Amino acid sequence: MPTPKNTLFIIGIGPGKDDLLTIAAKEALAQAKVILGYRTYLAQIAHLIRGKEVRATSMMEEVKRAQEALALAEKNGPVALVSGGDPAIYGMSAPVFEVLAARRRPYHVRIEIIPGVTAACAAAARLGAPLSNDCALISLSDRLTPWEQITRRIRLATEGDFVLVFYNPKSKRRKNQLKEALEIVAHRRPPDTPLALVKGAWREEEKIVLTTLAEKERILALADMSSLIIIGNSQSKLIDDFFLTPRGYGEKYRLTDEKA
Amino acid sequence: MPTPKNTLFIIGIGPGKDDLLTIAAKEALAQAKVILGYRTYLAQIAHLIRGKEVRATSMMEEVKRAQEALALAEKNGPVALVSGGDPAIYGMSAPVFEVLAARRRPYHVRIEIIPGVTAACAAAARLGAPLSNDCALISLSDRLTPWEQITRRIRLATEGDFVLVFYNPKSKRRKNQLKEALEIVAHRRPPDTPLALVKGAWREEEKIVLTTLAEKERILALADMSSLIIIGNSQSKLIDDFFLTPRGYGEKYRLTDEKA
Repeated sequence: MPTPKNTLFIIGIGPGKDDLLTIAAKEALAQAKVILGYRTYLAQIAHLIRGKEVRATSMMEEVKRAQEALALAEKNGPVALVSGGDPAIYGMSAPVFEVLAARRRPYHVRIEIIPGVTAACAAAARLGAPLSNDCALISLSDRLTPWEQITRRIRLATEGDFVLVFYNPKSKRRKNQLKEALEIVAHRRPPDTPLALVKGAWREEEKIVLTTLAEKERILALADMSSLIIIGNSQSKLIDDFFLTPRGYGEKYRLTDEKA
Repeated sequence: MPTPKNTLFIIGIGPGKDDLLTIAAKEALAQAKVILGYRTYLAQIAHLIRGKEVRATSMMEEVKRAQEALALAEKNGPVALVSGGDPAIYGMSAPVFEVLAARRRPYHVRIEIIPGVTAACAAAARLGAPLSNDCALISLSDRLTPWEQITRRIRLATEGDFVLVFYNPKSKRRKNQLKEALEIVAHRRPPDTPLALVKGAWREEEKIVLTTLAEKERILALADMSSLIIIGNSQSKLIDDFFLTPRGYGEKYRLTDEKA
């Protein structure tokens, strides 16, 4: 079935490694007449969009990008709007649907979202099994959410013994949030709680730091916008070079008693 | 670079649709000499593993499956251990690393985890933009986690105004957890809070119900182990046929004042 011309694909491209894109994402990019996205993400898929009409925009221009993508899809699609990771998790789905929710006239656009590997999963795969019990995904960016609301969530998620995943931990202009967030957690969890930073997961520049809350200063110094931070729950531990949050198999099946 | 023979791939196959697998997942399956997994997931990738040695096991056999995969990879790999969705999120990473953590002797196995599209992202893509603010992923299965701990997390995440995502909401033997979980939330959030169920996301049998907490009985009746439940935060709304949790663009950029 050919893709209708008025299609807007919102595509999650995963962590930015060639082969961590879904097959559907690759095919949708191939079908699109125009491709829009933040320039860093477009650079990550450059080999897949060569020769295409590409409109690269800057970081803060999500709304303009969404409006342009909708208008283009209506006139002459299919159009692909690219999102790092997965479009639903702090990605491009929100600006598109917020524009749609505020519209005064209907857009005649058919939206097709292609999910991707979100940063939490991309980072977890490099660390072992850090997310194997309930987790809370929290963005530390206070550009669109009041900081008091974010800190309240960090406190409650810490009390609930969730594994904590911090997206957007730090940027050039925003340095203090991560410091405060780590302090909130360090007041409530012991210093030997596993703490990991994965920077540029799966890409050439990838850097992994696997440590504990006691060494949070190291993490603070290294974090940036391409980093993801994971903090363990009360059961998490560092074993050799991996981060394990038990799901509970060890206890249930008394694995330490077995011969293996 | 050829894959070392002692490699154990832990592979996230995403929601179970042909093309929502990553390219890396497809390639790892092609390289594997033996493929292990829960039979339902193996059936979803049958077209990719034809002619291979396959060892299908039942739902509760995660630990046996992990032990077998490690032993096979040590002797004669590469071996692929298949996980629905993403291996980190309630998938096969936990049993493998829990077996490793409890080992008395080292396994000489090189583990490579290939992340996938987790159910939260797969379902969100079918609904609009339900997860665009901080969210809590909670499994309602009390097989390995005490129910009191799960309900405590639901309460705290609700207080923190997280979007709630319930994995494993109901099974044949476990019917009451979802009822109780929805009641906890309904006591703390208004009846018009968006509530969605996505069953068999992206597969032929897919069923989507988009409603509100007021109609939780409908969701209760339909949910099963292949379902994912998403409950909005205080900002979420249903618009036409989509579920939107605003990230905050509409407010920040005064989208309702614009002409589009």
